[in-house]
Amino acid sequence: MRVAAGSGLEQGTSLTPGCSLRLQGVPVSPGCAAGRPPQAASARTDIRDCSVDPPYLPPTAINTTAQLAALRDIMRAHSVHAYIVPSTDAHMSEYIAERDSRLGWLTGFTGSAGTGVVTQDKAALWTDSRYWTQAERQLDCNWELSCRGKHQLGPLPLLHWAAPGCGFTGCSQPWTASPPSDTWNSYSQALHGSGRTLLPIENNLVDQVWGDQRPPPASGEIYTLPAAFTGSSWQEKVAGIRQQMEQHVRRPTAVLLSGLEETAWLFNLRGHDIPYNPVFYSYTLLTNTGISLFVDELRLSAAARQSLRAGCPGPLCVELKEYRQTRAHLHHYAQGNVTIWLGTKYTTYGLYGVIPQEKLLEDSYSPVMLAKAVKNPKEQELLRAAHVRDAVAVIQYLLWLEKMVPQGQVDEFSGAQHIDTLRQSHNRGPSFQSISASGLNAALAHYRYGSTLARASSSGGEWAAGGWEDGTTDITRTVHWGVPTPLQKEAYTRVLMGNIDLSRLVFPPNTAGRTVESFARRALWEVGLNYGHGTGHGIGNFLSVHEWPVGFQSNNVPLAAGMFTSIEPGYYRDGEFGIRIEDVALVVNAQTEVPFLTFEVVSLVPYDRNLINLSLLSPEQIRYLNTYYETIRARVGPELQRQRLEEEYRWLQRNTEPFPLGSAATTTTTTILGTLTSLLPALLTGLQA
Amino acid sequence: MRVAAGSGLEQGTSLTPGCSLRLQGVPVSPGCAAGRPPQAASARTDIRDCSVDPPYLPPTAINTTAQLAALRDIMRAHSVHAYIVPSTDAHMSEYIAERDSRLGWLTGFTGSAGTGVVTQDKAALWTDSRYWTQAERQLDCNWELSCRGKHQLGPLPLLHWAAPGCGFTGCSQPWTASPPSDTWNSYSQALHGSGRTLLPIENNLVDQVWGDQRPPPASGEIYTLPAAFTGSSWQEKVAGIRQQMEQHVRRPTAVLLSGLEETAWLFNLRGHDIPYNPVFYSYTLLTNTGISLFVDELRLSAAARQSLRAGCPGPLCVELKEYRQTRAHLHHYAQGNVTIWLGTKYTTYGLYGVIPQEKLLEDSYSPVMLAKAVKNPKEQELLRAAHVRDAVAVIQYLLWLEKMVPQGQVDEFSGAQHIDTLRQSHNRGPSFQSISASGLNAALAHYRYGSTLARASSSGGEWAAGGWEDGTTDITRTVHWGVPTPLQKEAYTRVLMGNIDLSRLVFPPNTAGRTVESFARRALWEVGLNYGHGTGHGIGNFLSVHEWPVGFQSNNVPLAAGMFTSIEPGYYRDGEFGIRIEDVALVVNAQTEVPFLTFEVVSLVPYDRNLINLSLLSPEQIRYLNTYYETIRARVGPELQRQRLEEEYRWLQRNTEPFPLGSAATTTTTTILGTLTSLLPALLTGLQA
Repeated sequence: MRVAAGSGLEQGTSLTPGCSLRLQGVPVSPGCAAGRPPQAASARTDIRDCSVDPPYLPPTAINTTAQLAALRDIMRAHSVHAYIVPSTDAHMSEYIAERDSRLGWLTGFTGSAGTGVVTQDKAALWTDSRYWTQAERQLDCNWELSCRGKHQLGPLPLLHWAAPGCGFTGCSQPWTASPPSDTWNSYSQALHGSGRTLLPIENNLVDQVWGDQRPPPASGEIYTLPAAFTGSSWQEKVAGIRQQMEQHVRRPTAVLLSGLEETAWLFNLRGHDIPYNPVFYSYTLLTNTGISLFVDELRLSAAARQSLRAGCPGPLCVELKEYRQTRAHLHHYAQGNVTIWLGTKYTTYGLYGVIPQEKLLEDSYSPVMLAKAVKNPKEQELLRAAHVRDAVAVIQYLLWLEKMVPQGQVDEFSGAQHIDTLRQSHNRGPSFQSISASGLNAALAHYRYGSTLARASSSGGEWAAGGWEDGTTDITRTVHWGVPTPLQKEAYTRVLMGNIDLSRLVFPPNTAGRTVESFARRALWEVGLNYGHGTGHGIGNFLSVHEWPVGFQSNNVPLAAGMFTSIEPGYYRDGEFGIRIEDVALVVNAQTEVPFLTFEVVSLVPYDRNLINLSLLSPEQIRYLNTYYETIRARVGPELQRQRLEEEYRWLQRNTEPFPLGSAATTTTTTILGTLTSLLPALLTGLQA
Repeated sequence: MRVAAGSGLEQGTSLTPGCSLRLQGVPVSPGCAAGRPPQAASARTDIRDCSVDPPYLPPTAINTTAQLAALRDIMRAHSVHAYIVPSTDAHMSEYIAERDSRLGWLTGFTGSAGTGVVTQDKAALWTDSRYWTQAERQLDCNWELSCRGKHQLGPLPLLHWAAPGCGFTGCSQPWTASPPSDTWNSYSQALHGSGRTLLPIENNLVDQVWGDQRPPPASGEIYTLPAAFTGSSWQEKVAGIRQQMEQHVRRPTAVLLSGLEETAWLFNLRGHDIPYNPVFYSYTLLTNTGISLFVDELRLSAAARQSLRAGCPGPLCVELKEYRQTRAHLHHYAQGNVTIWLGTKYTTYGLYGVIPQEKLLEDSYSPVMLAKAVKNPKEQELLRAAHVRDAVAVIQYLLWLEKMVPQGQVDEFSGAQHIDTLRQSHNRGPSFQSISASGLNAALAHYRYGSTLARASSSGGEWAAGGWEDGTTDITRTVHWGVPTPLQKEAYTRVLMGNIDLSRLVFPPNTAGRTVESFARRALWEVGLNYGHGTGHGIGNFLSVHEWPVGFQSNNVPLAAGMFTSIEPGYYRDGEFGIRIEDVALVVNAQTEVPFLTFEVVSLVPYDRNLINLSLLSPEQIRYLNTYYETIRARVGPELQRQRLEEEYRWLQRNTEPFPLGSAATTTTTTILGTLTSLLPALLTGLQA
């Protein structure tokens, strides 16, 4: 049985390519189809076939029968009818340590966003369109795959799915791995009056099943970031937050920090507890008179310890407390005449629930999260410099691929390894597992190579972000060394037009990214194309490559000068090819009389000329490209020469030749891509990061 | 003392031109400045000067000392520290009857959106940028003017303003004139823990002061709309809503309708209780087994009564009940085993609060509001036809002005009268008080002429919407018969570019208007210009000219085929001139392979060639204009000929000549309008509706 359905994706504005469910003979639940007509359904089918005996599964699928059976035993013992397993950890981290990968261990699915729900006779995974193809390749037939926008499992589908014919008690562990407090509250409200209750459980049931197979806690060093890389001491940052507390009408007495980036940023500390994210497990309670840092003290470097303790005793003395004491300490603090300010997006229900409602000051994001989003001049300078160095590595890689690929000597795995090596001479390691995908695999927005998925490729790959100690980069280029099809060229050009149109936009202060991200989609929309992921995300300074709340989604904060965001439209044809063009841009003042804003693109790598259909571009778009290429030459050229990379220098000159203006679209050449469905599986290969 | 401040406007994306406060020697409260840097402050000053003795006030200001003193006496008697007076009525109507104009009577301010707050020693009015200039001309020095986005008084500014130094009990009357239930709840939450409480009061305090000076209740006939104008019987509409109730997971047993348009639409009835809005005071409780209509039964026409009672007894029998019984009846109904579905945006807290929380199914908009938003094929056909007839009247008017204005024989008042006369031969009256403004007054977005504001004008005017029995029109044209300045031409052209760019956009299903309305602003943003109002609103079929929840604002529902919306970018230079170009457009399927959407503009009047700087337009924009003009010729030309309006026909041909493509912007001619501030008060006159 198959259901194809359109669901409200993360964008609200995106065409939903539909998702297909094959179920093990059980009636199909409304799942992602709930409440919406299947108008955007496509013919896409699940690679799995659970209707035959034995089921057909790709070799990458994981057998989860044993862990599911064990979890169901424990659920019965706790009288739990449905158990919710989020993909995140106790800090709402987007990327998590292996030890926190409860969802991955339980389901086999290793994408960064998803929610699992298990009942006694059913199990389902909700994830967004970036991960549908990956989920089909990793889930076995124990699992239904349900499509939902973004990370969240909406309360209504949950009701629909787990409801029919039985009252149930939805459960989740509120402390170590629960939905953030705002999601928890929305679940609870949706369940209100339905005869079902959301019940917090103290001990995580998955951990109990996982037992001693679960990886051990992190133990690496936590170190201080050099002053040259921060632009602001932790004492200055603390003073700034305390000033905001004083000026707030509710006069909060404390700020609670749950997000790992928040504590790392505030104290200029870094660790390596989560791969590709230089953070460490911690909480902070910053009050008007003191500071408590909850962390494994033994892991602090001597210098870090000294920096934190230099102001003791006094208001700038950091009291070091056990990580596990956080909740008890917060409970104790909340007994007093206090008001505690927190951001609900990064606080679990387990912590949130400790604070009496009348002592709570809740925003979506804490003031630390918002302060961190606007980079100081030093940080801006460092991020710009990091992109020059990263451009050198990327250009080296592109040249290497151009030479190696035609010889058939590169597959996705070796390609990704090579770019990581090129970057290693300067940096602390990639900010993200480098993405290298070719052909079919490039249709996965967030594909990662792995030993079972790696395929030899004769024509290229894709690759990704580098984390420099002074900044984080995130760039995607899609390239083709053969003869692209007209569709491939048109799709690439329209993705590029979207990138350009958003990058050159001038807009007023306080503009929400949500209201302008459609500029990155318009050229695709014009011919009925779209992409199912967001258009951009904030970037940390040697912190997470996805740094919220900056970006173009509905829950992002208004754009302000000093924020960095990626701009990354794409286009994906499932089973055929994938395109993304991603740059990092700084929000700067525009050249208008009134203080309007615009973007300065700081990524400095040219696009693939072989894939651009110039006749689709407007004169403004061509002029923009030529100006951008002049900037690349001016900033990257000297660095290539300094490093005596002569071949790379010539490559750069060749690939940044100005485009002739005469080729621009002065007559409309809107090509209605009416023959899309008849195309052969495409040959396009992509360089994507 | 003066404070200039930027506030978060209705758009979130709009530049805030700032608003100025002059106060009567009292300390300036944070008001609209709360929490935001004054980055967008302008040099605009309040026309009032309350710092001199006696204060300087324009002759249009109303002395409110007596009514304020009387209200404060009553407040003291009720131990109320602050009293909130919304601008709306018990049905959340945007436009209200004189009898419900409590805010207007108390403050002198007659704009359609605002909130007043009165304490013992202060009084303030919050309104949005459309009305700031009007408010300065109507308020006396008893009133502070505070700038806020849209209709709402945000909870935080309220706290700030009324808070300093005193605990207070904010009060409002929950039944006849209170904030909608969602606003009430947000106020309550914001006040939580602050020592202040929002207290509902049964009897409206303003009404008590107003006494027998208050206008009497409406008494006109309520009549049935002919079947030829509806496309769907009320029985069919009821069946559709009941089907939605059955299919909803919560299985509501009833839908409560508070919005006047909801009941009027559902039963195909109309009245004239509110000027320019053909509705009547009523509530409806539609249950799965019966229908209660709360209305003054004696006002129903015989045909209306017969239609409603034809199905009695039975599930399609409408029980007629006294309007005043609504609350008691609802209270009684809510005692049973029921679930009541309502839209919080149109339900007062007074009604909402009657229903126990667990029996409530709340959405922003009721299913009737959403069903009404998508017009059936008959309604679409009628609205298209209404626009052809309206175009004839508008063209007659434009031609008349073109001849009369140079002779100095038209002022704003006689201009508005003339267009209303031209329309009267066919229709039920204007859907909106026709706007006629010239020169300085055209800088007011929603200016209305009045005996005290009317000025002789030598060069033209603006005018507005016509309510046809089979549809509602809303069109704005800005014209100039002399030599416009370069700035006027550029501003007009950029407003037109915005109108075109949004009108020709292709977008996916389920796109929220909010995410695409920036296309109407981009051309203005490019040179640092903007406008402070929304970009469009839904249109009723012989119902309100502003029909929510369709439109481009954050609380509007996703666009769907069959919805009508206005598209109306503008630009206003306070004290100089104003421009708006407004059309009505139908959401239709685009010519894409997948089911994407686009707009079909149904307004059929050409733009002013004298004000278009062709060199700013792209080839696509010129091509779009020429295609639009072909459509106007094809649809309106034959009607002009049929009516033997030969001079008008020649005018139409002249004004719809195709534009040469060669004039388009092939080189960028972005003119940074750096000399804006040095311009003399402009001569531009506008035809605006």
